[in-house]
Amino acid sequence: MDKVFRDPVHNLIGFDKERDALVLELIDTPQFQRLRNIRQLGVTSLVYPGATHTRFSHALGTAFLMKRVLEHFHELNPPPTLQQILEEHRELLLAAALLHDLGHLPFSHLLEEFTRIPHEDWTVRIISDPQSPVHAVLARANPNYPKQMIRLFQRTFQPAFAVKLLSSQLDVDRMEYLLRDSLCTGVTYGYFDVNWLIHSLRLVEQRDDWELAIDLRKGLHAAEGYVLARYYMYQQVYHHKTARATDVMVRKILQRASELLRTGHDLPAPAPLRKLLTAPRILSIEDHLHLDDTTVLAALQAWRESDDHILADLTSRFWQRRLFKTLDMPLEEFTAWSAQLRELTAHAGFDPEYYLILDRASDDPYTDRYLWTSGEVGENIFLVNNAGELIELAHASDVIGALRNKTFSQDRLCFPEELRVAIKHLLGR
Amino acid sequence: MDKVFRDPVHNLIGFDKERDALVLELIDTPQFQRLRNIRQLGVTSLVYPGATHTRFSHALGTAFLMKRVLEHFHELNPPPTLQQILEEHRELLLAAALLHDLGHLPFSHLLEEFTRIPHEDWTVRIISDPQSPVHAVLARANPNYPKQMIRLFQRTFQPAFAVKLLSSQLDVDRMEYLLRDSLCTGVTYGYFDVNWLIHSLRLVEQRDDWELAIDLRKGLHAAEGYVLARYYMYQQVYHHKTARATDVMVRKILQRASELLRTGHDLPAPAPLRKLLTAPRILSIEDHLHLDDTTVLAALQAWRESDDHILADLTSRFWQRRLFKTLDMPLEEFTAWSAQLRELTAHAGFDPEYYLILDRASDDPYTDRYLWTSGEVGENIFLVNNAGELIELAHASDVIGALRNKTFSQDRLCFPEELRVAIKHLLGR
Amino acid sequence: MDKVFRDPVHNLIGFDKERDALVLELIDTPQFQRLRNIRQLGVTSLVYPGATHTRFSHALGTAFLMKRVLEHFHELNPPPTLQQILEEHRELLLAAALLHDLGHLPFSHLLEEFTRIPHEDWTVRIISDPQSPVHAVLARANPNYPKQMIRLFQRTFQPAFAVKLLSSQLDVDRMEYLLRDSLCTGVTYGYFDVNWLIHSLRLVEQRDDWELAIDLRKGLHAAEGYVLARYYMYQQVYHHKTARATDVMVRKILQRASELLRTGHDLPAPAPLRKLLTAPRILSIEDHLHLDDTTVLAALQAWRESDDHILADLTSRFWQRRLFKTLDMPLEEFTAWSAQLRELTAHAGFDPEYYLILDRASDDPYTDRYLWTSGEVGENIFLVNNAGELIELAHASDVIGALRNKTFSQDRLCFPEELRVAIKHLLGR
Amino acid sequence: MDKVFRDPVHNLIGFDKERDALVLELIDTPQFQRLRNIRQLGVTSLVYPGATHTRFSHALGTAFLMKRVLEHFHELNPPPTLQQILEEHRELLLAAALLHDLGHLPFSHLLEEFTRIPHEDWTVRIISDPQSPVHAVLARANPNYPKQMIRLFQRTFQPAFAVKLLSSQLDVDRMEYLLRDSLCTGVTYGYFDVNWLIHSLRLVEQRDDWELAIDLRKGLHAAEGYVLARYYMYQQVYHHKTARATDVMVRKILQRASELLRTGHDLPAPAPLRKLLTAPRILSIEDHLHLDDTTVLAALQAWRESDDHILADLTSRFWQRRLFKTLDMPLEEFTAWSAQLRELTAHAGFDPEYYLILDRASDDPYTDRYLWTSGEVGENIFLVNNAGELIELAHASDVIGALRNKTFSQDRLCFPEELRVAIKHLLGR
Repeated sequence: MDKVFRDPVHNLIGFDKERDALVLELIDTPQFQRLRNIRQLGVTSLVYPGATHTRFSHALGTAFLMKRVLEHFHELNPPPTLQQILEEHRELLLAAALLHDLGHLPFSHLLEEFTRIPHEDWTVRIISDPQSPVHAVLARANPNYPKQMIRLFQRTFQPAFAVKLLSSQLDVDRMEYLLRDSLCTGVTYGYFDVNWLIHSLRLVEQRDDWELAIDLRKGLHAAEGYVLARYYMYQQVYHHKTARATDVMVRKILQRASELLRTGHDLPAPAPLRKLLTAPRILSIEDHLHLDDTTVLAALQAWRESDDHILADLTSRFWQRRLFKTLDMPLEEFTAWSAQLRELTAHAGFDPEYYLILDRASDDPYTDRYLWTSGEVGENIFLVNNAGELIELAHASDVIGALRNKTFSQDRLCFPEELRVAIKHLLGR
Repeated sequence: MDKVFRDPVHNLIGFDKERDALVLELIDTPQFQRLRNIRQLGVTSLVYPGATHTRFSHALGTAFLMKRVLEHFHELNPPPTLQQILEEHRELLLAAALLHDLGHLPFSHLLEEFTRIPHEDWTVRIISDPQSPVHAVLARANPNYPKQMIRLFQRTFQPAFAVKLLSSQLDVDRMEYLLRDSLCTGVTYGYFDVNWLIHSLRLVEQRDDWELAIDLRKGLHAAEGYVLARYYMYQQVYHHKTARATDVMVRKILQRASELLRTGHDLPAPAPLRKLLTAPRILSIEDHLHLDDTTVLAALQAWRESDDHILADLTSRFWQRRLFKTLDMPLEEFTAWSAQLRELTAHAGFDPEYYLILDRASDDPYTDRYLWTSGEVGENIFLVNNAGELIELAHASDVIGALRNKTFSQDRLCFPEELRVAIKHLLGR
Repeated sequence: MDKVFRDPVHNLIGFDKERDALVLELIDTPQFQRLRNIRQLGVTSLVYPGATHTRFSHALGTAFLMKRVLEHFHELNPPPTLQQILEEHRELLLAAALLHDLGHLPFSHLLEEFTRIPHEDWTVRIISDPQSPVHAVLARANPNYPKQMIRLFQRTFQPAFAVKLLSSQLDVDRMEYLLRDSLCTGVTYGYFDVNWLIHSLRLVEQRDDWELAIDLRKGLHAAEGYVLARYYMYQQVYHHKTARATDVMVRKILQRASELLRTGHDLPAPAPLRKLLTAPRILSIEDHLHLDDTTVLAALQAWRESDDHILADLTSRFWQRRLFKTLDMPLEEFTAWSAQLRELTAHAGFDPEYYLILDRASDDPYTDRYLWTSGEVGENIFLVNNAGELIELAHASDVIGALRNKTFSQDRLCFPEELRVAIKHLLGR
Repeated sequence: MDKVFRDPVHNLIGFDKERDALVLELIDTPQFQRLRNIRQLGVTSLVYPGATHTRFSHALGTAFLMKRVLEHFHELNPPPTLQQILEEHRELLLAAALLHDLGHLPFSHLLEEFTRIPHEDWTVRIISDPQSPVHAVLARANPNYPKQMIRLFQRTFQPAFAVKLLSSQLDVDRMEYLLRDSLCTGVTYGYFDVNWLIHSLRLVEQRDDWELAIDLRKGLHAAEGYVLARYYMYQQVYHHKTARATDVMVRKILQRASELLRTGHDLPAPAPLRKLLTAPRILSIEDHLHLDDTTVLAALQAWRESDDHILADLTSRFWQRRLFKTLDMPLEEFTAWSAQLRELTAHAGFDPEYYLILDRASDDPYTDRYLWTSGEVGENIFLVNNAGELIELAHASDVIGALRNKTFSQDRLCFPEELRVAIKHLLGR
């Protein structure tokens, strides 16, 4: 009997009350519930108003896709050894898919950059900590689960396909977020044929292990479509100039608040946020649990009243949606003009440290440089032909070959609207 | 040239930069931007995780549907007098559709019930107030717009169809929220054929005025489908037992906080929220602007640490999603058992005032009792036959006739899970 | 490993190459392949141009929905006895769902009315006949299958739920055609929440048998939505006035051709069609196999050149889409005016037998009159409450109650456009 | 007031009864009605069962997209000269979009190859012929229309954008068939963001003319998505091996029938088909009107009874879906083995002329070789940057650059299943 969640992307997301009891118990932990209050795309809803979806929905959908993929492998009538592997790891893989984003702070990259602690580290910490409910639920199901899940996230688990399904250039996480971000933003490029892609997945025996691959004959174009979908979403949504400018603005707000707090000013902020801004290394798991979008947004509201002019100004701009403007500008050009730009900014009464920022947005749509890394499971996408041979996607596809190992970077100067005319004049644009 | 918003429901929402300049200016006011931070369905995302969409998106979509409806009337090649009316009121009607929800507080019915100030009053106040940016933008476009818009919202405007399009049993507001709520919750009942419904709309001359109607031959079933879609959404989503139980819980939290503040306890809360909870009648428009989901949610987070046991307990339950449970129970049954239930509750250590609540959820799927109200424009849905005669929907349709003037009420007892066994035992269920 | 068909309605329709081998073999029989060339909605594509979908696609989809329903029952963790029943009948039920429309002639109701042989009789005959490939494939899988399948179609099979799933007011056939007809016509009323409806299905033990039911708490509105979807499709599509007028026209063509052939005229027509038109009772299974849309349409093309004026005229009208016009007219009114109308028609040079027809289209959206029929399995839809009690849909639902046992009839006079003015003049319309 | 067609792709296709009267009149001509009976994808429904959609629906949709594109240009507030051009050519362009496929014979490429008369020639002939109803309707609207439309189809019309919108690598025809074929086959690759693509279209002044372009900043990825969608549909659908093998089979049937007829055998076939197969050059417009899917399919049915063994065998295979099998085989390999393969085929009792065919399917996903062709309007896709400069798509896009001027060919050997083992054995596969 399924427990069912209704969902805009998958319609019905069901988990069996008995067989998938672990997933259902994990959903009820405070740490997982916390994800209800963290938007998947941070401030992107300022650009795409529909993008208010949360990491909670995304995580449910990711576990559901993992379930669908494993059921697909089961329907391929695998040999008994593989059948046993699939059966043995099912519970762990569904749980890992559900928990893969557990460590995310609100406004994730922002706060990751700020704290220099990757969200993966937080995920591992929460799973490891004997005090955390998530650990308790996992360990009760199987004492080995916490350690196994950590090895999964650290890419040292066997079978390799399990690692890849969770995290690689072909994982259920990406499949899910492309579908969800695409639907919620209204940007249809993120749409790809998930049913056919899953239908084309194969497990191929390789030196005592099982590799994830896509049936070349059936799935080449679905694979291309999926990689392109991700590339387009980066270009159109994740790296949208206004979304990036807003990110820059919030980063500068946090930087300013951090400096004020470190130098003895008082600012309204709950304890965990205060700690995050001054000494992120000593944040406890309990603190982490209390950091969500509301915590940060409420501070951003309160700081509008700050007597620090910069903090009050930046937060007011944020709430009134007077966002930074951008100008495309390669780093070299910025370097050449940097001194003059800073002078212009200061002259207009804006501290260049907070009001003049060069932002670089970079994306690697597809890379095969992981190919021969040892120790860890790689991230390449393989296709398998009728003879059972594996071929790397970038070598099988002209289209993906054209993107292979390319980095698409966009440098943009960010600044308040008041400076636009003067900056353009200076640059002769 | 259109300014375009991408959107999950309508795909592209476009407004012409010149012709619809007023709409675009209104979108940029702080009051309208505030709607970005107010979820359309309040706490319903605790039940339907996808339901995180905001009043901002809904308002954009509503203005867009108004635009589509008016363009449809234009394409019907109306007589010159009507053509002129349509042209003359276009700008005002789009603006009114955009602003219809401007006055909403966060968690709307909750805070409306609490303050006893309907959101419509707030909307009118914001539009009237010469200090408010919204007023300024409207008055700059046309000095009569603020007053005209208020008459629209108060149902005393002519032509009548303008009032009806904005607010009646057949208005663009309902059309929009049904589509959006349906998509975001994943509950497909809310879907109806909006293209065909719009295609079937007509304006019919009636005693010196123009009445909104649906072409009987073309649109009867689209009209039925639309009314049923709303009915189903009430049954499945808006009145879902867990959503209602969560509402009850938040109402009790606010009630408790209000009592504590009124009796001199201190609680962390920004000034506008404090005023809202103690003296809502003196809230200023500026205060209103600073009340959004974040304000309330941040207070709910902070109060987990309150030294008032009830407040701390209820807010903790909210955040851990240990929501009240419900039992279907007609009011009469509750009245009969009330004393015993309260005793049981108190005996278990819970204050019945906060932990034992009978909730009544009521919906009138379709009513024709407005038919002969005078002075104000009614809310009935009319169909028009080939002879140009108007027929009331409930009389034209067996299906809607079956729902006519019926009230669907659901009384439910709400209480903490800890009491479930004892209550069921007491009631012999 | 699945054999997969891509499909506009279900996206991927998959059957397991081993487990569902019987379905795959049946698909390859000539009788099933013949359905590729029979449109599901006959001449309706003259009104809804997208409605060119075939019985082949519909039958694939029906078998697929049957598979989904049975898998849903399996996931409910049924008691072992039921589990065994489900396992035991799976193959037969999928095959029956696939073959349920096998006996259909082209332009089905038309030719059924004409031959007075229901398509169900043909289906039974094909399954019974030891010479037919379908019989051979079934009997090779299990010698009892042909007989069991016939008992299924004749409603005398046990368990009752198997009969109901195949043919009742809640069967996979209706579910499928509503979805497909809705998509292909572009008439969205036929859409209903099939995922949720399947999710709500239950099997309830009843006097040594298992009854099909819908979980009252979960599925009442999905059940209503499904019944209404069907009602709307009848009103909007199946009984569309132009579709009906076209049906009338084709019926008159076949009647004329039959009379000509019986009275010794020669008409180009392949042998099976000739037999069909003159002596349908002696049609063989081999003849049946050679009757599809092409057979009839090619005759309709050839007869444009007939030296019989009526046949040539009617077929030319059909191909040039100069279809009969209609006027709503109750039977009583027609009876009263009949003589005058016939005179008017004859006077204008048209034989009233072929050019003046009263057409009655009738639909019973929901009926519970089958309730106490004995011997055969009934067609009612039941809901099951938490106590395991069954409640008839019309009694549980106001909306369906309003349609219960009502017959929606529409009488229309059909005639050539040339008569329109005169007929309206005569009737004073 | 719109006349509306419901449609699975566009939902509602509307044309104004006054403004678009010409389109509505053209729809009613016998030549256009004929397209109801010609499937867009010929025999492809034998592989994708949903692909039964007709050229009639496609043509309606194409005219509708043209209307949407022209309305988009109007909404861009163009300069008065362009505004006038748009207004002046609107009617003609809608009509041309509607009629662009008028000349198609059934099973189009097949019969085009067979007759060596391109369908465009037929279209021009029908439009030119003073006897044809299509010509009459056009000329009545404007005596210049027939000539202008022919110049449009022959690419010598000005403004250039009109030609491009009708026929180029970025035309409304392709947009429409990708959407429709994608929906009906269930192959989602054909889906692209048509709303955004239209939203990104621009008209750019160029040497006394107006060029069609896509806004580089807005529409680059939509343009890529559209070109890729077409590429994928070729790979997955139009060049699907079984669809091609079926084409080969039907071509061989027609070749055999033609030879038999030319050498004096009698075969049942209506006069126009007989003429088509023996002397296509003398086919009249009246003959053309009587050639549709039914004409050909009925002949294919009748010829199963032919006393010519080859014709009877091939048509029986077609109807029983015992289609030719394929083996990938480059032309050079085929040449090398040709003699032995033919011997093997003949030895098995099959005439190699009819039972052993090398099929080459070729597609150029994107080419810029038309760039400097003079006289005619080219077919390139241009983007326009903020400075108003045009950039060719293949130069602006890495992804399309990777496909530029590449030809994707697939050579396949086609033969009856009975030969499979022997051929594989011979080739050592």
